[in-house]
Amino acid sequence: MKLAEIARALGASLEGDGDLELDELAPLDSAGPRSLSFLANPRYAPHLAATRAGAVILGPGIESPGCAVLRVPEPYLAFAAALEVFDRPVLLAEGIHRSAHVAEGAEIGPGARVAPGVVVSEGVRIGARATLHPGVVIYPEVTIGDDFVAHANVVIRERVRIGHRVRLGCGVAIGNEGFGYVPLPGGGVSNLRQIGTVVLEDEVEVGANTTIDRAAIGATRIERGAKIDNLVMIAHGCRVGPEALIAAQTGLAGSTVIGARAQLGGQVGTAGHLSVGEGARIAAQSGVPNDVPAGAEIGGYPAMDARLWRRASAAIHKLPELLRRVRRLEKAVLPD
Amino acid sequence: MKLAEIARALGASLEGDGDLELDELAPLDSAGPRSLSFLANPRYAPHLAATRAGAVILGPGIESPGCAVLRVPEPYLAFAAALEVFDRPVLLAEGIHRSAHVAEGAEIGPGARVAPGVVVSEGVRIGARATLHPGVVIYPEVTIGDDFVAHANVVIRERVRIGHRVRLGCGVAIGNEGFGYVPLPGGGVSNLRQIGTVVLEDEVEVGANTTIDRAAIGATRIERGAKIDNLVMIAHGCRVGPEALIAAQTGLAGSTVIGARAQLGGQVGTAGHLSVGEGARIAAQSGVPNDVPAGAEIGGYPAMDARLWRRASAAIHKLPELLRRVRRLEKAVLPD
Amino acid sequence: MKLAEIARALGASLEGDGDLELDELAPLDSAGPRSLSFLANPRYAPHLAATRAGAVILGPGIESPGCAVLRVPEPYLAFAAALEVFDRPVLLAEGIHRSAHVAEGAEIGPGARVAPGVVVSEGVRIGARATLHPGVVIYPEVTIGDDFVAHANVVIRERVRIGHRVRLGCGVAIGNEGFGYVPLPGGGVSNLRQIGTVVLEDEVEVGANTTIDRAAIGATRIERGAKIDNLVMIAHGCRVGPEALIAAQTGLAGSTVIGARAQLGGQVGTAGHLSVGEGARIAAQSGVPNDVPAGAEIGGYPAMDARLWRRASAAIHKLPELLRRVRRLEKAVLPD
Repeated sequence: MKLAEIARALGASLEGDGDLELDELAPLDSAGPRSLSFLANPRYAPHLAATRAGAVILGPGIESPGCAVLRVPEPYLAFAAALEVFDRPVLLAEGIHRSAHVAEGAEIGPGARVAPGVVVSEGVRIGARATLHPGVVIYPEVTIGDDFVAHANVVIRERVRIGHRVRLGCGVAIGNEGFGYVPLPGGGVSNLRQIGTVVLEDEVEVGANTTIDRAAIGATRIERGAKIDNLVMIAHGCRVGPEALIAAQTGLAGSTVIGARAQLGGQVGTAGHLSVGEGARIAAQSGVPNDVPAGAEIGGYPAMDARLWRRASAAIHKLPELLRRVRRLEKAVLPD
Repeated sequence: MKLAEIARALGASLEGDGDLELDELAPLDSAGPRSLSFLANPRYAPHLAATRAGAVILGPGIESPGCAVLRVPEPYLAFAAALEVFDRPVLLAEGIHRSAHVAEGAEIGPGARVAPGVVVSEGVRIGARATLHPGVVIYPEVTIGDDFVAHANVVIRERVRIGHRVRLGCGVAIGNEGFGYVPLPGGGVSNLRQIGTVVLEDEVEVGANTTIDRAAIGATRIERGAKIDNLVMIAHGCRVGPEALIAAQTGLAGSTVIGARAQLGGQVGTAGHLSVGEGARIAAQSGVPNDVPAGAEIGGYPAMDARLWRRASAAIHKLPELLRRVRRLEKAVLPD
Repeated sequence: MKLAEIARALGASLEGDGDLELDELAPLDSAGPRSLSFLANPRYAPHLAATRAGAVILGPGIESPGCAVLRVPEPYLAFAAALEVFDRPVLLAEGIHRSAHVAEGAEIGPGARVAPGVVVSEGVRIGARATLHPGVVIYPEVTIGDDFVAHANVVIRERVRIGHRVRLGCGVAIGNEGFGYVPLPGGGVSNLRQIGTVVLEDEVEVGANTTIDRAAIGATRIERGAKIDNLVMIAHGCRVGPEALIAAQTGLAGSTVIGARAQLGGQVGTAGHLSVGEGARIAAQSGVPNDVPAGAEIGGYPAMDARLWRRASAAIHKLPELLRRVRRLEKAVLPD
């Protein structure tokens, strides 16, 4: 692709030869003469001088390392746009593969791409342009909107409701029974039947092998535009607000409520029956025992104000020394 | 369903109109005139006055908000029973789907429901009334008892032995090789062959995408009635005692022994070759480095007595301040 | 199998009756007269006297409990070799099952074992002797070397490149889109297209339900001989060095670099854009916020030198007491 075309697609101002042919996007340190590269994270600035890239996306005021430049106000956004320019998406064949099992009466909208071995059960309704990769299993009475993408081996349990433009990564399991047990009088426990469901609203995206359990009653609800990473556990009865971001391996215990646009790092755990306010940010690996106010930034185990946690965790290093210092003080002051 | 019928099913005493028709169970704050609601967790008591529920399950001495009441001694147990009353389970069609692959000589008991694309390998024996959802794969020489339920994409590796009334959530993997390597003299590592197996005893239940690895020798064993949540990792050679409860994303390192009725919160990790005593309780996210006595309640990273951990973790907040206070003391006392 | 044969296979010196017939390997405490047992971990030495094993593998200088002995210099290595002697591996039938879906033009080398329902998409090239268990899905344009083993329900996304002798456990997902979003000017976020790929080099092994995401550009790369356990998350753009070992439920945030032969315990989390040096060892559950030098041993949350962490974490237990002691000092010294 010619550099001039790319510049047009990105709305970038071109400094250099517009006829330059480029094949790929590459980081500064592995780029070659047919690569477009970029500097978006200052951490990688030292690589700029030595890059062999044919052209590079740069923000204002940064000097060219000698190659052509696509000058833009926000290099990260231009990089994101360049990813789309260079993308070669792989599509399933249109139509429903003859080896897919679509129950009688199940409805699949026009433009569907349904792979070999997919199972769509009775009472299912799916909107237009669905893509169901191999091994996808949809249990009975599920409803799904338009432009649904389910990667291989996704499972959607009975009666789950899914909005438009939802994307699910490989191996995602939506609607498994929640983990609820009632102690029996004679010892042991009995299953708490989970008769609720899961609702995924429009533009929800879920990463690989994540599990979202059905509510005992009502619905576990992932609201519009929330994005959930891989291997996340969303327990029964949780509500994840619109545009919230939840990173990998985080777990929400039952009935956790996450506010709009909140951001949870990886491996966070929340105790159940608590709520995280709008726009709150929770650092990776935090353990959240209590409600979190809107806009708060917290971290740590147990989680506290993020700045306090940074100081407290630095102090943990000093604990052995602190013990010694207190012993010395005690000797000086309380010499009994 | 008529309220009088529900009252009978729950053994509740009815206060109000027994002819009232109800369609669903709902939490107090989202219930409508055709909902049965309940108050089991005092946290939700403030919602009682404003509920629009047609009827509500209440414990002794709690006043009706104006609607009909099902009065019971233990509202949570009555709620659990009501879930069963309102449940509309979805069943696979009886029989073995013509597209399932059942090896010659594999035995599947009467009353089975085997979905499209299921694979049952040679030498497998399965008891009566098994339900195998789509994508279930059973490797050779596995034995399984009666009333087995495996949700979509469950995998059972070779020679695993499973008891009666076992239920496995979507994507569960039982019997993968344990993570064991032997350092090679010239550097690098070589696989430690894992020739043992996994045993799941009667009434074991396992949540979605959980993995239970086979032992190097002998068996990884999950004993009668133990319940394991989603995305849990049980390593090779572990033993989980009867009626133990293990919440989501917890990981047991190799050869961990969990006692009967022990309860592990979510995201707990145990070091290998240790044992957790009967009835012990381990708080979420704890890191357990050593044996835990029977009946102990522990928490923290590294785990300690739970009450001590509550005090210690509160003190972590105060560490930066404590450092300042010790510095001030040192200035006063040791002014050199 | 006769004990004399086993002795030969292990290069062990035989003390006892070489005609003894043995059927299995078993731990000391559950071994019977037809079991071969072993003492490799001193933790289990107390079981030696009481074992009912027919024969036992012992290191130099350890007295026989009365049964036959296979004497070796390194009992753990001999145990590893004995596992291979007693292994009865289960193999898929050779050939491509008629119900597998192999796209026209996809190439599968000689000696392949391809199970029912497997999907191999267009443009895929696979080397000799591949084993693809049921439910394996290979997206378009993937290349795979010789002796590949993929257990049931593994998914390999488009264009992933895999070397020789790679083994993937059940439910592994390779090449899902990384978790990357760009904030939109009007609020919300937009997908950062992930057009890179994943490379698994020779001898890489991956445990069940682990996910390895594709890079935004370039490749997420798992280098020669690295071993990854179950339920691990490797985010976009990471590089895991040769022969590194990563235990279960660990998560690497985007662009983490793990050095050769580094060892990460279970449930470790690393912040993104950092590097862990060659041969470093990270204790289970550590949270790694910064670069780790080669050869370092670290632990804790946040991670620090492992010895310091052992002392610091012991001190956390004493924090409540320390607070009291400082209060007492303050009273004595600053009595205002």
